[in-house]
Amino acid sequence: MTELTESEQQRRQLVAEKHAQAKGLLRETGIDCWLTFQREGSDNLLPFLIGGDYLVSQSALMVFADGPTVAIVADYDGTQVEGLYDEVHTYPLDWKEPLLTTLRERKPAKIGLNYDLHNEGIDGLTHGQYRLLTETIAPLGMEDRLVSASPVTGLVRAVKTASEVERMTRACEITQRIFDDLTGMLRPGLTEYDIYEIIGERMQTYGVGPSWEASYCPSVTSSKRSAGHTAPGTTVIEAGEGVRVDFGVMYEGYASDMMRTWYLTRPGETAAPAEFQKPFDVVKGAIAAAAEATRPGATGREVDTAARSVVEAADYRYTHATGHQVGKKCHDGGLILGPDNVRYGDRSGGKIVEGMVFTLEPVFDPIGIEDDVVVTADGCRFLVPSQTELYLV
Amino acid sequence: MTELTESEQQRRQLVAEKHAQAKGLLRETGIDCWLTFQREGSDNLLPFLIGGDYLVSQSALMVFADGPTVAIVADYDGTQVEGLYDEVHTYPLDWKEPLLTTLRERKPAKIGLNYDLHNEGIDGLTHGQYRLLTETIAPLGMEDRLVSASPVTGLVRAVKTASEVERMTRACEITQRIFDDLTGMLRPGLTEYDIYEIIGERMQTYGVGPSWEASYCPSVTSSKRSAGHTAPGTTVIEAGEGVRVDFGVMYEGYASDMMRTWYLTRPGETAAPAEFQKPFDVVKGAIAAAAEATRPGATGREVDTAARSVVEAADYRYTHATGHQVGKKCHDGGLILGPDNVRYGDRSGGKIVEGMVFTLEPVFDPIGIEDDVVVTADGCRFLVPSQTELYLV
Repeated sequence: MTELTESEQQRRQLVAEKHAQAKGLLRETGIDCWLTFQREGSDNLLPFLIGGDYLVSQSALMVFADGPTVAIVADYDGTQVEGLYDEVHTYPLDWKEPLLTTLRERKPAKIGLNYDLHNEGIDGLTHGQYRLLTETIAPLGMEDRLVSASPVTGLVRAVKTASEVERMTRACEITQRIFDDLTGMLRPGLTEYDIYEIIGERMQTYGVGPSWEASYCPSVTSSKRSAGHTAPGTTVIEAGEGVRVDFGVMYEGYASDMMRTWYLTRPGETAAPAEFQKPFDVVKGAIAAAAEATRPGATGREVDTAARSVVEAADYRYTHATGHQVGKKCHDGGLILGPDNVRYGDRSGGKIVEGMVFTLEPVFDPIGIEDDVVVTADGCRFLVPSQTELYLV
Repeated sequence: MTELTESEQQRRQLVAEKHAQAKGLLRETGIDCWLTFQREGSDNLLPFLIGGDYLVSQSALMVFADGPTVAIVADYDGTQVEGLYDEVHTYPLDWKEPLLTTLRERKPAKIGLNYDLHNEGIDGLTHGQYRLLTETIAPLGMEDRLVSASPVTGLVRAVKTASEVERMTRACEITQRIFDDLTGMLRPGLTEYDIYEIIGERMQTYGVGPSWEASYCPSVTSSKRSAGHTAPGTTVIEAGEGVRVDFGVMYEGYASDMMRTWYLTRPGETAAPAEFQKPFDVVKGAIAAAAEATRPGATGREVDTAARSVVEAADYRYTHATGHQVGKKCHDGGLILGPDNVRYGDRSGGKIVEGMVFTLEPVFDPIGIEDDVVVTADGCRFLVPSQTELYLV
């Protein structure tokens, strides 16, 4: 037997943790089998949690509540699930036969699929794949056993295991390190794009990639502009102005999502003027209030209210949510720390569970502070310390 | 009015080409409206063809056969579709109202959605989004007007416009340039992973990213190993051995997917031994046969047979398809140049259309040559010249 590399051992450990978590949830929710039915280009959301990130051909990944984990994949995809599943059935040409045989033998009464109307993080099954699956299993008469796996997948995705928290902490540490490097390199006269390039070079140095679309990760915004999901531009940052950077990295498949704010002092200035310092202190207070409210059992709305009321009491406003989940993607879907309105629908009413990771970002122009926190047994913990002072350069 | 940057002008040009193409196909196939219903994390397949790559919140992108193009997006997503759609409706909170109003006013008799049972490149609508859409439009009584948009989307995705071919040609040119750079840097004693790192550095230099998952793009395989979808390892390449590199880059949103083979001469050797030269010549002949057979009206199977028979006549074999489509992704889905078997299903029986781009890769260990060709009016054209000699170093 070949000796496993450390990274392969870590990967197997992580998938084993996620499979065990899924089995517990399947038993709790009375679903007999969680079936991830996918091929390349479909469902890039869930398979990567359970080992099968880059499967090319039609694949079926199954976790039985009281049975084995079973992977049915094409022969050339076999190495990807090797050592991760109790049973690996590779097929040269026909994927239907092993799928039908497995279902016929195990007779699951309830089969959970990866779809959800409101949580994009667990809505990976395409409609075409759904139709192909129902067509394929028609001979078994099991169509009415298909249900949404949401009660399982929602928590498998949202509740991070020890290995996942470790990777996310490392992603945040590297992000903060890059912010600190930037502090040493910032000077009046640089454009937003110059800063974007400096951060790109730092990512290269630390061997990490951006945690969202590269063209606006980092998003760099001069205090002369309003922040948003836009790419950095040619605006020059001058002394007497501020700059916000919204940025995250991917580390071993897990994302960070953070923001920090700098102020460029004018000659002779030793502190930021009130137009920066005052809103900074308000955001800092709002983040503290959000963190204080983030604990198991609290709703997303309660956390949102805690932070938003601090901001509104100081006569500022923001319209977006106070925070969202982070994990395999920087926007990981599911429960959101947001208000009760049409945009966020039911997504802010749910209860926080230990192990979830959220951003806290109760921010408004010209200040950006965003932190990632993991929910603990009785509160939450910042993955790396927050920004407590404006960075002055 | 702000002057548009050259890249923004090019983007608008490309989307305008794709919208015009879609309208023509809608009229031909009798579908009144092509509706892309998506939000972040869903349908990352088609929206990027029609402007809307990174829409975060619930969005509806519509192309009417005899009407305007209409985008319904959240206010903060508005800048992404600005200038690309005839009508842009941004909403602060409620996306349902503008969607219902548009459908009520325009009364499309047939609404095409992005799903397909067999072509992953046009199967972007998730099942959860499908259910949310049917639930939302229930008050209009239009559920039975929903059909698959495949007759339109299949060709919108597969048939490249002038702007798309231009970008793909540039992607291939950069890929070949990196292969040529590698030729100058290869030497006995490097590991597969060393070569992977050299290519990574070259991508950085040319400002491009990998066209598939970074951990195995490039895929670097010593002639001591069998090629596959695996990451490069610690195997050392010695004199007297060969190495294959399977690699592609993304250039302005379009992929290349190519393979090249090197032989590392022993002291005094001026040519590769027969165990490399003979299979190389067979692959070269099979590529020529595939290119000769690739023309409008031919089926994927005919091209596959043309290449495979050359290989089998020389007593070699390969089990994968002779080629697949390339475009926004390195595996772009749809018609495949493959055999008639269960694995490829109906996907190889369709007819080739002018403007499609295919890989040609009738390869087997230890040789890899893979080229990208665009179908012309009466044949096909290599986007960059093929490898006609083993690279000797």
